[in-house]
Amino acid sequence: MKYCVGADIGGTTIKLGIIDEEGALISKWEIPTRKGENGLLFMKDIADEIRKAFAEKDDISMEEDVLGVGIGIPGPVLPDGYVEVCVNLDVKDIYPAKLLSDLLGGMPAKVANDANVAALGEMWQGAGKGHDSICMVTLGTGVGGGIVNEGRIVPGTHGAGGELGHMRVVDDEPEQCNCGGHGCLEQYASATGIVRVAKRMMASCSDESRMREIEDLSAKDVCDLAKDGDELALRSLSYSMDKLAFILSHIALATDPQVFVIGGGVSRAGTFLTDMISEALGRYQSIIKADKYDVALATLGNNAGIYGAAKLMFPD
Amino acid sequence: MKYCVGADIGGTTIKLGIIDEEGALISKWEIPTRKGENGLLFMKDIADEIRKAFAEKDDISMEEDVLGVGIGIPGPVLPDGYVEVCVNLDVKDIYPAKLLSDLLGGMPAKVANDANVAALGEMWQGAGKGHDSICMVTLGTGVGGGIVNEGRIVPGTHGAGGELGHMRVVDDEPEQCNCGGHGCLEQYASATGIVRVAKRMMASCSDESRMREIEDLSAKDVCDLAKDGDELALRSLSYSMDKLAFILSHIALATDPQVFVIGGGVSRAGTFLTDMISEALGRYQSIIKADKYDVALATLGNNAGIYGAAKLMFPD
Repeated sequence: MKYCVGADIGGTTIKLGIIDEEGALISKWEIPTRKGENGLLFMKDIADEIRKAFAEKDDISMEEDVLGVGIGIPGPVLPDGYVEVCVNLDVKDIYPAKLLSDLLGGMPAKVANDANVAALGEMWQGAGKGHDSICMVTLGTGVGGGIVNEGRIVPGTHGAGGELGHMRVVDDEPEQCNCGGHGCLEQYASATGIVRVAKRMMASCSDESRMREIEDLSAKDVCDLAKDGDELALRSLSYSMDKLAFILSHIALATDPQVFVIGGGVSRAGTFLTDMISEALGRYQSIIKADKYDVALATLGNNAGIYGAAKLMFPD
Repeated sequence: MKYCVGADIGGTTIKLGIIDEEGALISKWEIPTRKGENGLLFMKDIADEIRKAFAEKDDISMEEDVLGVGIGIPGPVLPDGYVEVCVNLDVKDIYPAKLLSDLLGGMPAKVANDANVAALGEMWQGAGKGHDSICMVTLGTGVGGGIVNEGRIVPGTHGAGGELGHMRVVDDEPEQCNCGGHGCLEQYASATGIVRVAKRMMASCSDESRMREIEDLSAKDVCDLAKDGDELALRSLSYSMDKLAFILSHIALATDPQVFVIGGGVSRAGTFLTDMISEALGRYQSIIKADKYDVALATLGNNAGIYGAAKLMFPD
């Protein structure tokens, strides 16, 4: 049996996992992200953790049985593994895979963007299992995206592959997105965006809604009330998911995946949400048969990144 | 020296070419598309033509020096080479590559959509030379598109890869697109679309324009007058190219190519047109640095399909 390590590096913690060639997660653990020295500190921690983990496993030889380490990084990664800047990790101008490989005595390593790696993980062992071309959207504080085509991540030549969250969906948005742009998908379909749309809708009409009674409205509240039949909440959430479906209709005619996978905190709203997205997708384009495209809930949760990072190192 | 054959099958004619491994077009010719027997007639013609062509070339052995035949087809092609239907060729339920290969005694063959094959051709020997990830848009009677990622066509799992022409760009379009949808890019940025937009703009205002004096207005007229400073023509063409740039801004955040290649009859307007698209692209998204993306004119013209079809058979 062969094994790979997946390292999903976040701004606060690093998730590590050992996965076998059949996709079983043998062990997983977390360590804090120790910033500084342009990434060298947390890279050393990762290398130490990997050595320690295999030293404790009598049945696995790190030299003979481990194919390599895959890394997910929260920032743009060029196809050759170069990371110009990654604000959350306080690093600049590095080749993370080369760095880690050197620290591990030449063990093979690869790196990709964290959202892209999560998409690869869902394709391999999650909602996309059995498929080789998927598009994953993560609806969290922001909107992340990853495209996998014929089994491989589409990193993009500038590291912007699958950056669905910053595609323009509204032309006359006065408020600015975190990216500096206006009218990005993230401003409507992220958890923050869903609340923003709901508040805006409440302000623009006097329709009754139980949303008005909630002081610190959350995306979960909007979803729960929409499910519960609150009309304004439903209208508001439909608007947000319609913007998402608009973008998915473009992806359907760009890389044309078998399945769209919806993850992130907002996806806890379940099939109510994916049904809404699927219906809107069908409205957007007559040559897209909505029943051709599965809109599925992500199944790996926070482990998607570990799976995908490890999968970088397994042969196709 | 090794050679491949490219066959670009259109509804009226089939373009054939022999290309060597260095990308030189050794010979090219055309035959009429003889429809009938579910594609068997023109496939036999292609096989005969190929045998005849190599029989005339003393320096090339068809058995030893020819790697195979690539085919471009005007319809959706699934990743496994299956063509469900191709209206212009009057064929249904066929595997064109297998068919041709059988007719040529087992010579290797591959098939892909014609717009995708043209994109591959431009990547290899045209405006995308030196790059491996491009997006090509053909502005003709319709709007065709093809995406090449890391040297390979993105066919799409339903054969809809790179179908930019039918991405929705306008929400409230009353007129129907040829595809049955409403508000497709093709309705604004194709040659027909450019004229439609111009006529609509003329009807909606009383601004003076030399376009009003032309009885049978063409896309070329609109482009020529826009170049010449006719304000309404310029506004109209800018509107059309803005819709195209909107879609390209989404592709920039989906597959993130190095270069956008603009081909088709409308592209004869030259750098005036690509400059206009490039400027609009930069406006659409702040995280897309417009100067990162080259918007280039296609250079292979009608030969792009032959080049791309042949390239299907050359190793990467």
